[in-house]
Amino acid sequence: MNVGASPVSLSEVIAALGGDLHGDAALTISRVGPLTEADATTLSFLSNPRYQAQLASTAAGCVIVAPAFAEAASARGAAIVTPDPYLYFARLTQWWAARVRPLPAARIHPSAVIDESAVIGEGVDIGPLAVIDAGAQIGAGARIGAHCVIERNAVVGAGTRLSARVTLGFDCKIGERCIVHSGVVIGADGFGFAPSGSKDSGTWVKIEQLGAVSIGNDVEIGANTCIDRGALADTVIGNGVKLDNLIQIGHNVRIGDHTAMAGCSAVAGSTTIGAHCTVGGAAMIIGHLNLVDGVHISMGTAITRSIGKPGVYSGVFPFDDNASWEKNAATLRQLHSLRDRIRALEKNNQS
Amino acid sequence: MNVGASPVSLSEVIAALGGDLHGDAALTISRVGPLTEADATTLSFLSNPRYQAQLASTAAGCVIVAPAFAEAASARGAAIVTPDPYLYFARLTQWWAARVRPLPAARIHPSAVIDESAVIGEGVDIGPLAVIDAGAQIGAGARIGAHCVIERNAVVGAGTRLSARVTLGFDCKIGERCIVHSGVVIGADGFGFAPSGSKDSGTWVKIEQLGAVSIGNDVEIGANTCIDRGALADTVIGNGVKLDNLIQIGHNVRIGDHTAMAGCSAVAGSTTIGAHCTVGGAAMIIGHLNLVDGVHISMGTAITRSIGKPGVYSGVFPFDDNASWEKNAATLRQLHSLRDRIRALEKNNQS
Amino acid sequence: MNVGASPVSLSEVIAALGGDLHGDAALTISRVGPLTEADATTLSFLSNPRYQAQLASTAAGCVIVAPAFAEAASARGAAIVTPDPYLYFARLTQWWAARVRPLPAARIHPSAVIDESAVIGEGVDIGPLAVIDAGAQIGAGARIGAHCVIERNAVVGAGTRLSARVTLGFDCKIGERCIVHSGVVIGADGFGFAPSGSKDSGTWVKIEQLGAVSIGNDVEIGANTCIDRGALADTVIGNGVKLDNLIQIGHNVRIGDHTAMAGCSAVAGSTTIGAHCTVGGAAMIIGHLNLVDGVHISMGTAITRSIGKPGVYSGVFPFDDNASWEKNAATLRQLHSLRDRIRALEKNNQS
Repeated sequence: MNVGASPVSLSEVIAALGGDLHGDAALTISRVGPLTEADATTLSFLSNPRYQAQLASTAAGCVIVAPAFAEAASARGAAIVTPDPYLYFARLTQWWAARVRPLPAARIHPSAVIDESAVIGEGVDIGPLAVIDAGAQIGAGARIGAHCVIERNAVVGAGTRLSARVTLGFDCKIGERCIVHSGVVIGADGFGFAPSGSKDSGTWVKIEQLGAVSIGNDVEIGANTCIDRGALADTVIGNGVKLDNLIQIGHNVRIGDHTAMAGCSAVAGSTTIGAHCTVGGAAMIIGHLNLVDGVHISMGTAITRSIGKPGVYSGVFPFDDNASWEKNAATLRQLHSLRDRIRALEKNNQS
Repeated sequence: MNVGASPVSLSEVIAALGGDLHGDAALTISRVGPLTEADATTLSFLSNPRYQAQLASTAAGCVIVAPAFAEAASARGAAIVTPDPYLYFARLTQWWAARVRPLPAARIHPSAVIDESAVIGEGVDIGPLAVIDAGAQIGAGARIGAHCVIERNAVVGAGTRLSARVTLGFDCKIGERCIVHSGVVIGADGFGFAPSGSKDSGTWVKIEQLGAVSIGNDVEIGANTCIDRGALADTVIGNGVKLDNLIQIGHNVRIGDHTAMAGCSAVAGSTTIGAHCTVGGAAMIIGHLNLVDGVHISMGTAITRSIGKPGVYSGVFPFDDNASWEKNAATLRQLHSLRDRIRALEKNNQS
Repeated sequence: MNVGASPVSLSEVIAALGGDLHGDAALTISRVGPLTEADATTLSFLSNPRYQAQLASTAAGCVIVAPAFAEAASARGAAIVTPDPYLYFARLTQWWAARVRPLPAARIHPSAVIDESAVIGEGVDIGPLAVIDAGAQIGAGARIGAHCVIERNAVVGAGTRLSARVTLGFDCKIGERCIVHSGVVIGADGFGFAPSGSKDSGTWVKIEQLGAVSIGNDVEIGANTCIDRGALADTVIGNGVKLDNLIQIGHNVRIGDHTAMAGCSAVAGSTTIGAHCTVGGAAMIIGHLNLVDGVHISMGTAITRSIGKPGVYSGVFPFDDNASWEKNAATLRQLHSLRDRIRALEKNNQS
């Protein structure tokens, strides 16, 4: 819980983040929290009008609201009025985090194993037992967590932060101001094999993956997510892309700028996803497809063809109580013949 | 295979675990194994009546059975009769493991990097190259595997065991007697961003995740599973929860006591799951839902609404040979119009 | 990108890999690349007749083709003619990788923590901060990456390569010439618990996993994939098996020789998969099943029964634009009653 910080006055919040304050600027805030769990020292927010009812009953000392709710919010206590309360809240969390958990001073831990040919920028932090291999470059102000492995000739951009236990493969590059969470593997081999011999008795011959991974600026990558190196050219992740946990990005994939993918989703090899797309959790996209900008894939959906038009695409089996599902699923196996029976009935009716 | 242990007599088994012995107490057992792969020194068990036929043909020296099978089991050799053979078997494996692979004596490996402000309890084991950061607390008798990273102010309860390569994020807590497998990441940031600018051209602004993760007692967490820290409050895992491998638990999720989730399942942010639930493999539950106690989700099912009633819920596409599936799937895309055609036929019939 | 290598003449390629050269043997090649991104120094290939049109327009210095395309290829420049261009290409990438990124000389890094009872073969490479525990055996020429953890009595076969941050659990064995990518966990406990008490209020009692994992030769395992140890006997992965990233293999599973599984697929406990099978991405196979040799599972498909006949099996919901999907999915919930209505219409028609 975000406690332990010294209290701050609303005037300090406004000075840092802007907004139109209604109420007592001297009011002190000691935590940021949801409307339903707030007390008199909590700064809360209302971003979704659906939760408007919570506004009347909350005990929050101050609530961040849109202009439409300024009156209702002020009626019950202090309010910060701003056009986009959710965005304000995001910035507030950043400002708050910097206050309550400032980054420790950068240091290169003596237990780290750093090749003498590696190039380490100004103000870089390297955690305990990290490994920086030959020819690697770490940009100014980057932070490499404990137990990270930065392989030969890999490049970490300025200001990028790697949590503990991240692997950045040889020749791979990640841009500036990125955040990479624990357990991420960038640059494992793509899954490429040529069959040798017949389908029924042959073996697989490895296709060495000669490309690398190239990641833009301001990218965030969630825990244990994997991004494979390309077969011939690089796998490319655009600027501002946000990837959640346990995501699989196959070799040669290209993801456009500012696309966001939720946890456990997967993109098979050589598929291109446009910019400003979203992919729901556990959705999967097969290989060699092309999705244009502005495509939004619902959770759990399997994308099996290219998509040439922006929009929302879905395809998940509707869940039900088990008995109902069983009956419907059994019938589904005869759906094609049901259609034929309807046709026959229609024909019969016409005659 | 569980060989190499010195043989043990059935009387020793009974002394340790109870049960009603039918047969020779001096019979020696050198392994625990399934009915179908047993020999005269194997202690086996019959828990599912479906496998009753295996009882007659097994070569096992002794079989653990329920009272209903006491006669049949004794007719062919020694038997241990107990009301719940599967539970007896579980306890047997624990007793057996303690015999054949006792834990090595606790030691703090000299290569571990332990901050001087960390608090290390009595009898703690810390493996090679583990990192224990400032303010972390390790409870009595806990075992921290090689290459684990315990970040600032994280807390590990007494008797909890972490396998190699586990990340426990700053401020996160795990209770007593837990087991955490290799590659687990607890406390990576939840996936939270506020959109800035329009949907088609905007960017994502990070919401700093100000909460942590709080895990109860007697929890087991499988390899490479991820549990994200909360946005404002903590992500909470109840007592006795069992999570398999490669599971994704989003921020602010709450999982009730003794709920079990199978591999590759996922729970998106801010969803609450009750106690004594089960979630099948690769099932996925979207965010902001509430599932009551005693809900059982089948494998591969996508849960898209809250569930207010205990029961079994399913929703997976029935697989078929590819040609049949293709025909049915193609028809499925016109299902709504098929319904309209049935309606038209019905109307026509009535007139 | 695969640059930086000293150029090579086509005659050297032919000398190393065979094939029938049409054109100038002295032509120098400096990269391997796709037809569409080739220049005069690129060696490219045409394996799929679907891309035949690219042959006419490519700028590649030389193209690897099948005999049927020999004439068309030679008409535009140099060509290597071979019965199976894709297989030739695979071997080319191996030869190329050996040239452009030769493995560094083997060394045992002084920071590695190696138990004195471990047996290290000839020419073994052990990376920085790797941990080799008591009784472990590392075969000749094996390479153990930075931060790997090889637990007690684990065995790594000759010539096998582990990338950074791999866990090989106690008593587990991996064969010769295998490749294991970063983050892989071999030998975590299988997910086994016996219920104690009633379904609504009971707890789970751990079944200690007394088996291990046994992996054959020439196996490749992708990043962050997990293979659990068996409950009583071993989990077994056959020779030549290829596993992509983020795959879950449950306890007691057996996978036959030369079977390949794509990313994010999962196999639950005690299932046996035959040889020469393929499993698509994110497909899932429940426990206690048996799949014969030559079974091919499509991506995203849930396999819920044993399969006794080779063939292709599928079962994924066809995606659609969201509005269409919603209508069809809603109707799907009444599919069973639609069938009844068709029956009633048919009966009515007959009377």
